[in-house]
Amino acid sequence: MTNKITITRPDDWHLHLRDGAAMHAVLPDTARRFGRAIVMPNLRPPVTATAQAQAYRQRILDALPAGVKFEPLMTLYLTDKTTADEIRLAKASGIVHGVKLYPAGATTNSDSGVTNIGHCVEALAAMEELGLPLLVHAEVTDADIDVFDRERVFIERNMIPLIARFPSLRVVFEHITTLEAAEFVAGASSNVAATITAHHLLMNRNAMFAGGMRPHHYCLPVLKREEHRLALVKAVISGSPKFFLGTDSAPHAKSTKEASCGCAGMYTAHAGIELYAEAFEAAGALDKLEGFASFYGADFYGLPRNVEKITLVKENWQVPDSLPFPDDALVPLRASASIEWKLE
Amino acid sequence: MTNKITITRPDDWHLHLRDGAAMHAVLPDTARRFGRAIVMPNLRPPVTATAQAQAYRQRILDALPAGVKFEPLMTLYLTDKTTADEIRLAKASGIVHGVKLYPAGATTNSDSGVTNIGHCVEALAAMEELGLPLLVHAEVTDADIDVFDRERVFIERNMIPLIARFPSLRVVFEHITTLEAAEFVAGASSNVAATITAHHLLMNRNAMFAGGMRPHHYCLPVLKREEHRLALVKAVISGSPKFFLGTDSAPHAKSTKEASCGCAGMYTAHAGIELYAEAFEAAGALDKLEGFASFYGADFYGLPRNVEKITLVKENWQVPDSLPFPDDALVPLRASASIEWKLE
Repeated sequence: MTNKITITRPDDWHLHLRDGAAMHAVLPDTARRFGRAIVMPNLRPPVTATAQAQAYRQRILDALPAGVKFEPLMTLYLTDKTTADEIRLAKASGIVHGVKLYPAGATTNSDSGVTNIGHCVEALAAMEELGLPLLVHAEVTDADIDVFDRERVFIERNMIPLIARFPSLRVVFEHITTLEAAEFVAGASSNVAATITAHHLLMNRNAMFAGGMRPHHYCLPVLKREEHRLALVKAVISGSPKFFLGTDSAPHAKSTKEASCGCAGMYTAHAGIELYAEAFEAAGALDKLEGFASFYGADFYGLPRNVEKITLVKENWQVPDSLPFPDDALVPLRASASIEWKLE
Repeated sequence: MTNKITITRPDDWHLHLRDGAAMHAVLPDTARRFGRAIVMPNLRPPVTATAQAQAYRQRILDALPAGVKFEPLMTLYLTDKTTADEIRLAKASGIVHGVKLYPAGATTNSDSGVTNIGHCVEALAAMEELGLPLLVHAEVTDADIDVFDRERVFIERNMIPLIARFPSLRVVFEHITTLEAAEFVAGASSNVAATITAHHLLMNRNAMFAGGMRPHHYCLPVLKREEHRLALVKAVISGSPKFFLGTDSAPHAKSTKEASCGCAGMYTAHAGIELYAEAFEAAGALDKLEGFASFYGADFYGLPRNVEKITLVKENWQVPDSLPFPDDALVPLRASASIEWKLE
């Protein structure tokens, strides 16, 4: 049995850091584990312009604990009004590494999102030309589509036409949750990749109903049936460079989760690499963790791989029932329970 | 368009009243609408003996508002240890009208439930002989069975063998939620019937995730996919006497619903007949409401139909955001929203 692994320092290719005091509360968890992170732009108001991304990046750097090296990779929030000029500005800035497409209403702070991909043709053409990746929250938002079908239907309705129209566009299918998405990405061109969260590798939808309704196991896209979890595990241990790490760690105050209409998102940054180690070990594929966590994302984004190393040891540790969070508390994944791997 | 309907006073063939102050808070809602109700025995400790049922019945009668006529129909909680003698006592009492089977761990206060139907052979044989109905919470409890499959799997594993072994046993398949259950009951002998809740007729599982996680839309068996809702609607408007009204109204304090592990159950007694009127009207079958709500349940249980009438008028009314409840609040279905029918 492996009791210790050393891997190249990983990056998180999908992260919510929020802003202000909330960001200060959570940033150290990520910066301790990851060299870089793709930072989601769904603030209020959303980060739609390069100037905003630059200012947000500086706030993140200013919030880093002294002596900690961490590189925030910024993104813009695509709207119906994003211009090709803004895309050129973003690319030229050197600090914007992707543009995020949220279908309007799909998730937290997505009401400025895209109502129709047809409105974004100029921006997408500029991204294709410049090699700036499009990061997609791939769910339809129609109230009459079953919540467990929304990713699958998005592939048919939106992803396939998008890729047909912009064949050279670099696309990250974010936080995939279904067999259909895993198969779609595996079969698509090398321009198309996917991030996968640790929680979708570790849990199926029963986790939302284990002994009661579990708001801390609610995220979007929602956890799926076991067969889909198994398909995701298969994808990440395949060694395909199309699948890489994106935690989608999202801090929501406890009072906004344990509520009549609880926010979507799980906080996993406190164990952002450790949870993946659990999932890969359970699949008997710890040797595939480093490629997934530390190489393939950098390769896809055209960035150098990290050189520093981290070490994880097999050591059970208790997760607190909550973490400090401004004016409230933050309930992390595995609160009051344990995690099997620990960062040395 | 129908703006007013008068029907025989309905009965509620599946109701949670709890005890003490909670019972005092909710009983008037039911007693105002329904002539009788089958009262669930899952108190703490559960009502496993006739003497307990008699005492519980008296507490309910004592809690009725002055001048209100309402007949609680008591049930026993089946355990691995229920004897044939206890079943005979129950039948002879005249106040016990059914025995409830909870698979251990299936729902609220079910930890004393049946671990193996094989342990209950003597009690079941006595019930079959005496014509005392078995009321079944029909879900397997295996953690590795998908939560949306648990009713369907129970039919295969437990319901079919049970009915084969006790062909004359009167069985109520409680709160059915799936196409498979509706078809099973429709195809079974006349000894087998089912209750259906208003919430399963009105909502599919998307209601648990509409704009966020919705603990007040969480119940067991859990809401299912739309095709199952449509199958339930088809069953109740078929006019088959095998399907009758059971609200499964279950009061849980707000703080136990909006929690890290929220309780299962919806409070619907505040509009216990009005919500059904909505569902039947939406299906264009208001003429089928009276049989479902007021006749078929009494016929199945071998009790006289009520003679009194009630009148419902089509009148939109606002449901409060919460109702009084001891040391807390009770969030009813449609809190802060409206209901289209009103009891005159």
